[in-house]
Amino acid sequence: MMKKKTTSGKTSAPVQRPRLLVLHGPNLNLLGSREPQHYGMATLEEINRALARRAEAADVHLESFQTNHEGILIERIHIAQQEGVRCIIINPAAWTHTSIALRDALAATKIPFVEVHLSNIHAREAFRQHSCFSDLALGVITGLGQQGYLLALEYLLNLINTD
Amino acid sequence: MMKKKTTSGKTSAPVQRPRLLVLHGPNLNLLGSREPQHYGMATLEEINRALARRAEAADVHLESFQTNHEGILIERIHIAQQEGVRCIIINPAAWTHTSIALRDALAATKIPFVEVHLSNIHAREAFRQHSCFSDLALGVITGLGQQGYLLALEYLLNLINTD
Amino acid sequence: MMKKKTTSGKTSAPVQRPRLLVLHGPNLNLLGSREPQHYGMATLEEINRALARRAEAADVHLESFQTNHEGILIERIHIAQQEGVRCIIINPAAWTHTSIALRDALAATKIPFVEVHLSNIHAREAFRQHSCFSDLALGVITGLGQQGYLLALEYLLNLINTD
Amino acid sequence: MMKKKTTSGKTSAPVQRPRLLVLHGPNLNLLGSREPQHYGMATLEEINRALARRAEAADVHLESFQTNHEGILIERIHIAQQEGVRCIIINPAAWTHTSIALRDALAATKIPFVEVHLSNIHAREAFRQHSCFSDLALGVITGLGQQGYLLALEYLLNLINTD
Amino acid sequence: MMKKKTTSGKTSAPVQRPRLLVLHGPNLNLLGSREPQHYGMATLEEINRALARRAEAADVHLESFQTNHEGILIERIHIAQQEGVRCIIINPAAWTHTSIALRDALAATKIPFVEVHLSNIHAREAFRQHSCFSDLALGVITGLGQQGYLLALEYLLNLINTD
Amino acid sequence: MMKKKTTSGKTSAPVQRPRLLVLHGPNLNLLGSREPQHYGMATLEEINRALARRAEAADVHLESFQTNHEGILIERIHIAQQEGVRCIIINPAAWTHTSIALRDALAATKIPFVEVHLSNIHAREAFRQHSCFSDLALGVITGLGQQGYLLALEYLLNLINTD
Amino acid sequence: MMKKKTTSGKTSAPVQRPRLLVLHGPNLNLLGSREPQHYGMATLEEINRALARRAEAADVHLESFQTNHEGILIERIHIAQQEGVRCIIINPAAWTHTSIALRDALAATKIPFVEVHLSNIHAREAFRQHSCFSDLALGVITGLGQQGYLLALEYLLNLINTD
Amino acid sequence: MMKKKTTSGKTSAPVQRPRLLVLHGPNLNLLGSREPQHYGMATLEEINRALARRAEAADVHLESFQTNHEGILIERIHIAQQEGVRCIIINPAAWTHTSIALRDALAATKIPFVEVHLSNIHAREAFRQHSCFSDLALGVITGLGQQGYLLALEYLLNLINTD
Amino acid sequence: MMKKKTTSGKTSAPVQRPRLLVLHGPNLNLLGSREPQHYGMATLEEINRALARRAEAADVHLESFQTNHEGILIERIHIAQQEGVRCIIINPAAWTHTSIALRDALAATKIPFVEVHLSNIHAREAFRQHSCFSDLALGVITGLGQQGYLLALEYLLNLINTD
Amino acid sequence: MMKKKTTSGKTSAPVQRPRLLVLHGPNLNLLGSREPQHYGMATLEEINRALARRAEAADVHLESFQTNHEGILIERIHIAQQEGVRCIIINPAAWTHTSIALRDALAATKIPFVEVHLSNIHAREAFRQHSCFSDLALGVITGLGQQGYLLALEYLLNLINTD
Amino acid sequence: MMKKKTTSGKTSAPVQRPRLLVLHGPNLNLLGSREPQHYGMATLEEINRALARRAEAADVHLESFQTNHEGILIERIHIAQQEGVRCIIINPAAWTHTSIALRDALAATKIPFVEVHLSNIHAREAFRQHSCFSDLALGVITGLGQQGYLLALEYLLNLINTD
Amino acid sequence: MMKKKTTSGKTSAPVQRPRLLVLHGPNLNLLGSREPQHYGMATLEEINRALARRAEAADVHLESFQTNHEGILIERIHIAQQEGVRCIIINPAAWTHTSIALRDALAATKIPFVEVHLSNIHAREAFRQHSCFSDLALGVITGLGQQGYLLALEYLLNLINTD
Repeated sequence: MMKKKTTSGKTSAPVQRPRLLVLHGPNLNLLGSREPQHYGMATLEEINRALARRAEAADVHLESFQTNHEGILIERIHIAQQEGVRCIIINPAAWTHTSIALRDALAATKIPFVEVHLSNIHAREAFRQHSCFSDLALGVITGLGQQGYLLALEYLLNLINTD
Repeated sequence: MMKKKTTSGKTSAPVQRPRLLVLHGPNLNLLGSREPQHYGMATLEEINRALARRAEAADVHLESFQTNHEGILIERIHIAQQEGVRCIIINPAAWTHTSIALRDALAATKIPFVEVHLSNIHAREAFRQHSCFSDLALGVITGLGQQGYLLALEYLLNLINTD
Repeated sequence: MMKKKTTSGKTSAPVQRPRLLVLHGPNLNLLGSREPQHYGMATLEEINRALARRAEAADVHLESFQTNHEGILIERIHIAQQEGVRCIIINPAAWTHTSIALRDALAATKIPFVEVHLSNIHAREAFRQHSCFSDLALGVITGLGQQGYLLALEYLLNLINTD
Repeated sequence: MMKKKTTSGKTSAPVQRPRLLVLHGPNLNLLGSREPQHYGMATLEEINRALARRAEAADVHLESFQTNHEGILIERIHIAQQEGVRCIIINPAAWTHTSIALRDALAATKIPFVEVHLSNIHAREAFRQHSCFSDLALGVITGLGQQGYLLALEYLLNLINTD
Repeated sequence: MMKKKTTSGKTSAPVQRPRLLVLHGPNLNLLGSREPQHYGMATLEEINRALARRAEAADVHLESFQTNHEGILIERIHIAQQEGVRCIIINPAAWTHTSIALRDALAATKIPFVEVHLSNIHAREAFRQHSCFSDLALGVITGLGQQGYLLALEYLLNLINTD
Repeated sequence: MMKKKTTSGKTSAPVQRPRLLVLHGPNLNLLGSREPQHYGMATLEEINRALARRAEAADVHLESFQTNHEGILIERIHIAQQEGVRCIIINPAAWTHTSIALRDALAATKIPFVEVHLSNIHAREAFRQHSCFSDLALGVITGLGQQGYLLALEYLLNLINTD
Repeated sequence: MMKKKTTSGKTSAPVQRPRLLVLHGPNLNLLGSREPQHYGMATLEEINRALARRAEAADVHLESFQTNHEGILIERIHIAQQEGVRCIIINPAAWTHTSIALRDALAATKIPFVEVHLSNIHAREAFRQHSCFSDLALGVITGLGQQGYLLALEYLLNLINTD
Repeated sequence: MMKKKTTSGKTSAPVQRPRLLVLHGPNLNLLGSREPQHYGMATLEEINRALARRAEAADVHLESFQTNHEGILIERIHIAQQEGVRCIIINPAAWTHTSIALRDALAATKIPFVEVHLSNIHAREAFRQHSCFSDLALGVITGLGQQGYLLALEYLLNLINTD
Repeated sequence: MMKKKTTSGKTSAPVQRPRLLVLHGPNLNLLGSREPQHYGMATLEEINRALARRAEAADVHLESFQTNHEGILIERIHIAQQEGVRCIIINPAAWTHTSIALRDALAATKIPFVEVHLSNIHAREAFRQHSCFSDLALGVITGLGQQGYLLALEYLLNLINTD
Repeated sequence: MMKKKTTSGKTSAPVQRPRLLVLHGPNLNLLGSREPQHYGMATLEEINRALARRAEAADVHLESFQTNHEGILIERIHIAQQEGVRCIIINPAAWTHTSIALRDALAATKIPFVEVHLSNIHAREAFRQHSCFSDLALGVITGLGQQGYLLALEYLLNLINTD
Repeated sequence: MMKKKTTSGKTSAPVQRPRLLVLHGPNLNLLGSREPQHYGMATLEEINRALARRAEAADVHLESFQTNHEGILIERIHIAQQEGVRCIIINPAAWTHTSIALRDALAATKIPFVEVHLSNIHAREAFRQHSCFSDLALGVITGLGQQGYLLALEYLLNLINTD
Repeated sequence: MMKKKTTSGKTSAPVQRPRLLVLHGPNLNLLGSREPQHYGMATLEEINRALARRAEAADVHLESFQTNHEGILIERIHIAQQEGVRCIIINPAAWTHTSIALRDALAATKIPFVEVHLSNIHAREAFRQHSCFSDLALGVITGLGQQGYLLALEYLLNLINTD
């Protein structure tokens, strides 16, 4: 879909890096200061930069996106389908436990995704034990802090290469 | 409530067609391509056009509205009350199972409504078996695809005429 | 299956109108007098006549049948299979919530059916919230009174024509 | 409905004794031999005769009826409405726990009724703890054996006299 | 235990009338004014007088006792055992649903009892659907108002006579 | 019940073969065509013939009976008691999960029985996981198709011989 | 955050009054007309004005904020942290029962809050019995109408003064 | 009940101040020393004095009453009805979760009441999440410590004045 | 609390033996005659004497106390705190399963306690499976009859000595 | 796998009897003495001998195996796959209700199996009502004592012959 | 089993001391170092030695046995039956909550046993609240640390002496 | 535990590489052939080799261990503590859902661990939705096939380095 011009100026065959999308749910903009015993010391920007570096090294297009608005995240997923996003890493945060609308957006667009949680939700409140997403996901990484995102990325890079 | 002036300029008796509103919840903008085994092949635009044609024939004002933002749908319902909307056809999609806020909007405005689902939610996941809306609705039509909307409209046209 | 002779006596190609069957469960013979706040003022005969008129206009064979005996309804469904009934409209009334035997009859004969309820069962007692039939049905119409039957018929007429 | 001639021979205004109906559910025809530790030694006929004697003494028309067919009991209740039956004593036996259709028949005909159980169902299996009838009944007598019927009758005789 | 002297003055064999005890739980002292739609218009004193009259006629000793203190009722039951009380009629009122201690008092003393409720508890709040007593009782009469007590007495008089 | 010939050779009282009864519940008359993935290809008549052959070889009287009417099955069980039926093989079909009335008929007549299911109900819908009969049965055979009936017969023949 | 005037009298750094924030959830903009049996006759503006008057009298900065958009409320809470808001009064309305995201926003910012409900949610539908907020709150006031807000404010004014 | 002096100045019937009653349940006599992390440092006497001062200022008769005996509290409520108590503030303490008898006393006397809890019961054990009183109450204040009583009083003073 | 004699031999402040308290709940006054299959043949007095002998031997002050009144037991615990009771042995009997008020009394006074049951409550009715006390107790001894009390005493004597 | 030499000595095509495996779970080595009211009088060796005789007659290789070690049974199933075992008869005994590991072993090796229980587990404790195996099994035979094994063998012999 | 020496002093049949068996479940070999807040500081060997000393003093044969293998513990119980073990003290540790196989071993061998837990399982995780053993046990001692074993032994010594 | 070489170059005390342990539960020895749709095509040996290579590259001692015997795995964990294992990667397979004994072994030894599942257990049977381990784990990786192990290793290598 996306065509890149070569520096020579000639219209060469389109060069298209695989696209990955990282989605962060509500309140994750507060990372770094928010309950560090659960969520660690890294800010969201630091996490996103680490992901970007790794993606760059693998020659993969990676975009990170955070929102506190469910509707905006639904529509970001709709757009991802149009952009030809290959895989998604999603940390739905509190919506993990409540948003069937987000689940339906992922089901509707059929983009494979890995679900990531910074904290070990299994060691927290009962209402955090159920996820609306896990049975649709390729897999789930939980409790490994910001490393969880990087491991999910590692998995997807491997998946893309072996497709 | 709404009074239309006749072209003659004289203040004639107000001419007012009954207003109906059709509300579509999240991800329904993807209809046509989204999981057609559940939701069928028709696009949302095709459904809306079919509804518009039938309403036109019955000399009823009908507006269709889709949004992926719960807050916007809540406020659309608030406005409907001000507009004097007589009845609503609503397919709350994923919010069917989660949005007490939308339920409260309908309860607060007291506009009678029919709940419609394209797919037969009774034949799907357990979490789709509960609706936050059905006990408030005039009635529910589920599993009859885009026809469900037209049948709901037929019912409301009849209701308006026999009021 | 059923072949009709033409009056000319020649063995012409068989003329066969599509057959539909409307099934009414227990206590529906009391309609008109029974709890009108739930079930409305129309008698069962009036409902059946309205259905017959619409079917006649669509050149479809439609039979209505009410019984208070589960076994008789099971066997009526068995016979429907032999008669080549195309679709069924069923209001199982109280059996909605209890009769696996009727469900099995419909599953065994594989005749597609629409489930109809006069009252909005979602706004009534908890024990009326579960249906033994809905997940097998093409769809369900509930709470729209006698109109529910007519809308179900409309749906099936459309279905037969587009098969 | 029932007209009594006066002894004078003249066609006076019809004299009508109040009608009561006693309904016995499935397997109660076996009383006397069936699990006497639960149901006692009296046969159904003996129970019915005792009820008849008491009703006769009170100048009340009382009919007892037993069936193992749910549909027949439903229709017996429908007929009771036409007969002008004032009150019903019902021992729904096993249907106590399963028959919404019978409940609906009683609700539809609006005939006041007392629910009677020979055995103390509270001291038996868990599935006998729920009744589909009790919340509709005037009251319930359970565990008092054949006396339960007679006490229910006593109650209804009193009720009729004080209406 | 209780010995009656004959009028002749000679020490004859002791004459002992059978003893019955009627127990009323908390708030029943308010009867007559308390929620008459549930509990009727009769005062507790009127109920007790009617019971006393019937017992007197049957030459049975009957005492009625009301308390709002669980401990006092427990100890009244302990004393009943010492008095040789043959049977108890008990309306545990709110304690029906909560007092295992009272249940244990009845189980410990092994005095047979009938449980009575003025209102039809099956037609009231969910928390009134469970009784701590019913499975231990001879039987239960519910919903028949003050008549319930009299019918229970009738049953026990019969039981005593046929022992 | 069964009278044995005396050794004298005189025509003594008639010798009575042990009686067995095979009961088939609702929709089993459709066997052979009904959902063969669950119920197999054999018709009910073929199953009954195979059972009859085996019984004949064992000199046992065996009757098979199918009905779609609960009341008729209840009464067939009542009659079995009068006939002196020694054991019953019953496939209650859909009533397995709902009919306490049938359970009560078997409990009341005290005829020992084996419960048989053609399909493996444990591998089907949740509502098929509970049986109203299994705890009363001698035993249960499920999932072994028409063989299940023959194995149950084999068991009962052995039981009768070793009584 | 709050700077106190120095004793020297010079225009030192500005003195900052304690900040309080009042948050109103979805549909509360309709107050005054919406189901007055539940929510009373006062409009939201009237409530807010009463709160403002009381805060003014106490020399406290108080801002009221209503939204029908969950994302906006989340972000309003994030900002409150930056503004140094001391305490929050929140009526989450329908989100009370569903929004873990809002709960997380309050938990993340650690601003103490009192939860207020106009209606007595304990006397309403079962789905209104659970709050996602109450266990995090300082306390909860429910059922006291618009007074509930003022009492919560009274409590917080007292809390600020005794800190 | 309350009689106002006539303007004539003559000694008219005595003027009666409105009566309020504050009820404290079991173990609240230990306040001040009991688990201060839950219940605070104030003694019951201090709380009662603060309430008395405020009532005095408002010219209202207020009595505080604590007991560890359920029966005594039930009877105190009965007496309150005779005294013409206008409203009750009740902290049922442990009985909140278990005493239907107390609930029935309040329901029977129909005296409006506000339920108060010192600690935030929503943040404590699961068995403290259910109240037998809240759905009957005017409203509930929980978690605001001894202030909760004063706020409830404020509410009731306002209620009395605006009756 | 406990003062030790000084070595000088002068009559110093009185030496106080450690105090233990044994509490028996409702109906335990009937021990010996009450359901001996559950509770054994020993009377409460015999149990108390055995405990007293053992305490005496260990030079410990031990008092036994039984009541059928919850309020009295609550207040006995309050007093125990004032008396400086070191540990409690409690058999709450039926209150085990219902009395949060007693639990709160023990929690408020913070006196360590061992919970004892004569019968093995795990082998009895379902409603006896839950204890309001066990999670607060030092430990629980159940099913070991009157020995259970003595073993609990042994444990506490050891505990006091090793404090 | 197993090749049989012909008596001629020439290496003919391998002759292989079908292999069946009978697996007995924990405590079944105690059969004969263990709770005979549940498990009958036959020893495990007698059951195994009867199975062996029947298999021999049918020219089928049958091995019986009992263990009290879950790990050993898992590995016996793994080996069965390597041996080419055609079908398994398994009585998992207590592991029926707890061992997902055994279930996984059977699922992993895909060997068809019949589940057998000596006692009628449906008539025993609630914790015996669930089986980890039944939905994977060909079928289940329960309650028919040692005959159950032989009937299962009969079924499998038939299955092998008709494959 | 136990033979007593005759007073004659001749070498009579050997005298056999009563045998007791102490069984320790998985991970109890780690005692002393494992979570001392739950399990205390004593090692398993220290506990076993204390038990041995007490048994020796009472002239009773006592063996202690720990294993992490369920199958080995099952078989140890089987052997105990052959050894004529009179009673067992068992701490099933984690198997308390999961092992029906061990329960069945104890039920099959019918050896009376006392269940002991070092920690107060009632004050720990929800999954530790259920025991597969308690309803079969003579009794249960929980939360009294290593003393629990010694108290259980005391109980059994007493039981043996009073048999 | 780990000793570093001194800079002097002399043969100091041996340098110990950090130890990691990989534990595989029951049936995982079948990997490669077992239900590849769930568990993939890689054999356990291939997975172990890949882990070994990665560990070797990171200069970490890594041992992999599989067993079908719960007791052996428990004891392997006990030994790991003695060996000074730093972290564990565990795939408990079927024991995930049932083995509290394994959980206790990990809790007792306090070795940090990551839980890994090859398949996405959230998309499988309901009984696979609960893990006995997750709340104790550092984190969980599920559904990422053999990559899951490698990602867990990556996480632990990072953890060790940043300790």
